[in-house]
Amino acid sequence: MSDKKRTTIILFSGDYDKAMAAYIIANGAAAFDHEVTIFHTFWGLNALRKEEHVPVQKGFIEKMFAKMMPRGADKMGLSNMNFGGFGPKMIKNIIKKHNAMPLPQLIEMAQEQDVKLVACTMTMDLLGLQQEELLEGIEYAGVAAYLADAQEGNVNLFI
Amino acid sequence: MSDKKRTTIILFSGDYDKAMAAYIIANGAAAFDHEVTIFHTFWGLNALRKEEHVPVQKGFIEKMFAKMMPRGADKMGLSNMNFGGFGPKMIKNIIKKHNAMPLPQLIEMAQEQDVKLVACTMTMDLLGLQQEELLEGIEYAGVAAYLADAQEGNVNLFI
Amino acid sequence: MSDKKRTTIILFSGDYDKAMAAYIIANGAAAFDHEVTIFHTFWGLNALRKEEHVPVQKGFIEKMFAKMMPRGADKMGLSNMNFGGFGPKMIKNIIKKHNAMPLPQLIEMAQEQDVKLVACTMTMDLLGLQQEELLEGIEYAGVAAYLADAQEGNVNLFI
Repeated sequence: MSDKKRTTIILFSGDYDKAMAAYIIANGAAAFDHEVTIFHTFWGLNALRKEEHVPVQKGFIEKMFAKMMPRGADKMGLSNMNFGGFGPKMIKNIIKKHNAMPLPQLIEMAQEQDVKLVACTMTMDLLGLQQEELLEGIEYAGVAAYLADAQEGNVNLFI
Repeated sequence: MSDKKRTTIILFSGDYDKAMAAYIIANGAAAFDHEVTIFHTFWGLNALRKEEHVPVQKGFIEKMFAKMMPRGADKMGLSNMNFGGFGPKMIKNIIKKHNAMPLPQLIEMAQEQDVKLVACTMTMDLLGLQQEELLEGIEYAGVAAYLADAQEGNVNLFI
Repeated sequence: MSDKKRTTIILFSGDYDKAMAAYIIANGAAAFDHEVTIFHTFWGLNALRKEEHVPVQKGFIEKMFAKMMPRGADKMGLSNMNFGGFGPKMIKNIIKKHNAMPLPQLIEMAQEQDVKLVACTMTMDLLGLQQEELLEGIEYAGVAAYLADAQEGNVNLFI
């Protein structure tokens, strides 16, 4: 166990704005030299999906879920004022105008800063997501691994 | 105050999937030998409601709330892709298929593992819920009791 | 750094009930003699808006956001059972009946108890909110200031 401070975030939400908040905090904590983990579970797994369609074997319900859930960070909706997809467009325009970072770039930055991105294997099973469909360079673990990190954490958040 | 690690979760949400996440973390932490508390407030109280109708005296608004809120864990909806109640059915099918545990069993397991289940008395008042309507074996407390636990907590989450 | 215990809350949500929970916890922690910070970001900023219209220069999208977002705590909706604005009316009636405190008074009480209310400058930019539009006596900061507080925190929550 290192002496570094530690931040852990459970990203449960599949909303663009909540995922932005999670990644902004994670990147900030990494810049503060914390060891940072984002544990993606349930709808938060969608932030890790590849944008392109990945052909994998799925049952009927898994296929349905795969179709209905956003494929990757850029496709996620807002928790508020989504307006059938118009809200995210507005937010992305504003982000560009303010030279802020959109979610896909925040995720890239997190990977460059060695933020540990974890996909929850139990909920991957439930939602029918397979490793081939998720970004490269992420880890796969369950609640025990999360707790081992979090119990040493200085900042633990559920988003 | 014991030397055990401690996990506290505020369950504010009345969504089936969020409550599942709360109880999976709680059960995991109990297996790690943490002292675990789930403090149910606002819509999270619905997870503790008995399934059967309990005849108690209520005012008009209390009755309306009681009717509109789900009666127990099994009746709760999803935070995402609820589809008018079809989403929870799908999720429950998938849970069964994967031999995972549905929410009512996760709650039973938590009780067997001595996770402390607390109902927030202030929000019970607001929503017009009475002790007779909630599961046996739970505790009743307010924000002061929560804070006394949480300030010694290693993992504190708001779900 | 003082020896006091410390509570930090990120208020991301713009829902009346979630903001109530945040402020009830904050006021409780202040009564427990914690140093307390509420860091308002994204929709949580709406809790800090003044009720009256404040004439400031805005671009088109900023104006639209300003119109669509609730102007102050009293105008916020519920996360659940909002019923097009009828839900908040019911909750406020119940709050009055039970002699509990509505959100605007919880915010006043927090200010009297020296809870540090912070507005996230980055998301103020994104949503086009200016200092003139927010309550007096609050602070302005970014994620770095939040993390400096939270890494010493005993109770850190994301709401």
